Amino acid sequence: MPRYIAIAAITIDGRIAKNSHHFSNWTSVEDKNFLHAILDICDVVLVGNSTYKMAKKPLSKRNCIVLTRSLENKKDKRGLTYLDPNKQSLPRLIKKHGYKKIAILGGTQIYSYCLEKKLIDELYLTVEPISFGHGLPIFATKKQIKWKLKSIKKLNNNGSLLLHYLIKN
Amino acid sequence: MPRYIAIAAITIDGRIAKNSHHFSNWTSVEDKNFLHAILDICDVVLVGNSTYKMAKKPLSKRNCIVLTRSLENKKDKRGLTYLDPNKQSLPRLIKKHGYKKIAILGGTQIYSYCLEKKLIDELYLTVEPISFGHGLPIFATKKQIKWKLKSIKKLNNNGSLLLHYLIKN
Repeated sequence: MPRYIAIAAITIDGRIAKNSHHFSNWTSVEDKNFLHAILDICDVVLVGNSTYKMAKKPLSKRNCIVLTRSLENKKDKRGLTYLDPNKQSLPRLIKKHGYKKIAILGGTQIYSYCLEKKLIDELYLTVEPISFGHGLPIFATKKQIKWKLKSIKKLNNNGSLLLHYLIKN
Repeated sequence: MPRYIAIAAITIDGRIAKNSHHFSNWTSVEDKNFLHAILDICDVVLVGNSTYKMAKKPLSKRNCIVLTRSLENKKDKRGLTYLDPNKQSLPRLIKKHGYKKIAILGGTQIYSYCLEKKLIDELYLTVEPISFGHGLPIFATKKQIKWKLKSIKKLNNNGSLLLHYLIKN
């Protein structure tokens, strides 16, 4: 069975970005190092189209599945597949490629979609010691979930925390 | 100088409640024990009117300042003061009573008001291992804040975490 791993950096007030154009340059070096390390052991990155466009350069060297509502003007390349999940099955695509570890990198709609479709097994949450006061949440869904805290790691002296959760229900 | 201490329980997706009528019965026993212990060492509780009405019974035995936009039909009692912060000064009221430690218990508007007015020195955040997917954030403000993580405590085996932050800027 493939393993779906959601990875996000979040503020202490629960925001993953100030808005949909806000690049993740506010996270700590230690979070970025963790992100690269976990992506290296994953087979594919799953993102939404806005997130993909913002992080095109770093993502271009990795296998990517980009979820989108419109496939128009989008061309698959080596390692890059666009998918409209309302028209094709994401799990079937994952199976076809033989991907075993899927890194879900957001944004809000993608995290929420995966949560609703039971396509999250684990969640790595880096809690950065900042509050935006406003912005995008990690989830926007009716679905309530219980989690099991697997581990806590203090990433640096600034107070960046890496929390690892497993889904419970 | 009085010390303003914000205290909140939050989900891993950054929600303090599902909506303004959602009572905090979803938090762990250990969080409730912590809350009672810290309230016992504070001189007064600062809340909004909705929060006060929901928690009237447990709050009635403590000194309370209730922030409200309308003082109409609201009577002060022994230990209970209603205040419209647009008309009277909150710090002046605190000073008048000689309160040294102020426990800010929410909701969103009160946490945000205090953040904007620089009336938060510390934040105790209990992160419960649950996600609502929707609901009220702790802050709704334009003000971005950097925090210093003072301590982490695992409250139970379920994974409830107590994070203690100090304000940095």
